[in-house]
Amino acid sequence: MGRWEPDAAGRLRAAALDLYVEQGFEQTTVAQIAERAGVTARTFFRHFADKREVLFAGTEVLEQEMLAGLAAAPAGAGPLEAVAAALDAAAGFLGDNLAHSRRRRSVIAANAELRERELIKMARLADSLAQGVRDRGTPDPEARLAAEVGIAVFRTGFERWVDGPDGGDLSEVLRESLAQVRGLI
Amino acid sequence: MGRWEPDAAGRLRAAALDLYVEQGFEQTTVAQIAERAGVTARTFFRHFADKREVLFAGTEVLEQEMLAGLAAAPAGAGPLEAVAAALDAAAGFLGDNLAHSRRRRSVIAANAELRERELIKMARLADSLAQGVRDRGTPDPEARLAAEVGIAVFRTGFERWVDGPDGGDLSEVLRESLAQVRGLI
Repeated sequence: MGRWEPDAAGRLRAAALDLYVEQGFEQTTVAQIAERAGVTARTFFRHFADKREVLFAGTEVLEQEMLAGLAAAPAGAGPLEAVAAALDAAAGFLGDNLAHSRRRRSVIAANAELRERELIKMARLADSLAQGVRDRGTPDPEARLAAEVGIAVFRTGFERWVDGPDGGDLSEVLRESLAQVRGLI
Repeated sequence: MGRWEPDAAGRLRAAALDLYVEQGFEQTTVAQIAERAGVTARTFFRHFADKREVLFAGTEVLEQEMLAGLAAAPAGAGPLEAVAAALDAAAGFLGDNLAHSRRRRSVIAANAELRERELIKMARLADSLAQGVRDRGTPDPEARLAAEVGIAVFRTGFERWVDGPDGGDLSEVLRESLAQVRGLI
């Protein structure tokens, strides 16, 4: 499901982000988002728990993409190689929309509650990834460590991509970040 | 400042943890904590913003200890070696009170809001550590990656120590975790 399909959820996400950028997250109401998207507030609440969650719906899709990437890694791949495949999948999902990622990040950076929510979502992502690594046959603590290192690489690389000059390739940036961790060790 | 000195803040921390374990975090009031500690609620609020923060006051001391450990690492130490020195300092601060750590962890595990607060405190700890590594002359992204890997090692090792059989040495567990990350890479 693309972000720009003319479905209600997609229109609501786009309208919400537009309004958050234009007038700030705190100042925006669910009624305004629904109006901008051309739907009712009732429709909004059929898709999202509140105006905060509109910003984080993509994280669940990201999680599915990463877990699919992990599961598709060759059976002989070690835990960190499998996590690298999950990062490639994340780059495939996020990498073609830098402008969206930048706008979302500017909204989140401006609000302490949203920053905390983002951290919590990342921690859940690490939990899912650790479970995925365990499902491939690597026990803890290696599974958890591989997942945590993977999320550290993802966060650091993704931030660099969003803050850096245009035109970089996200999957390349993530691979560089992973190589930098290897270099540290 | 030891945790068991007969100062008001220390007595309040001990009383709060006792009550949270005995009757649950949600069911405990600031008035009850102050009464158990033999002080007034006014004294409580001179030391802590709310009943949640009592559980996290130690994190700030932990942060100071880790930053001191980082700063004391030899000038020639690489970023990850310096982070390992910070982990040793953390073990020195936390390692002699497994019973306390277990009780605190059981309280936090039982409450979603406290689990989120713990994640946020860990993320701040990673931020401080990254700044400490930068201050030693290592630029980003290596500084951030070293700090994130260090916190991943700390969280994984600390959990293993708290959940494992008694008598383990925390600094040894953390060194093992770091060695496991090296093994992954």
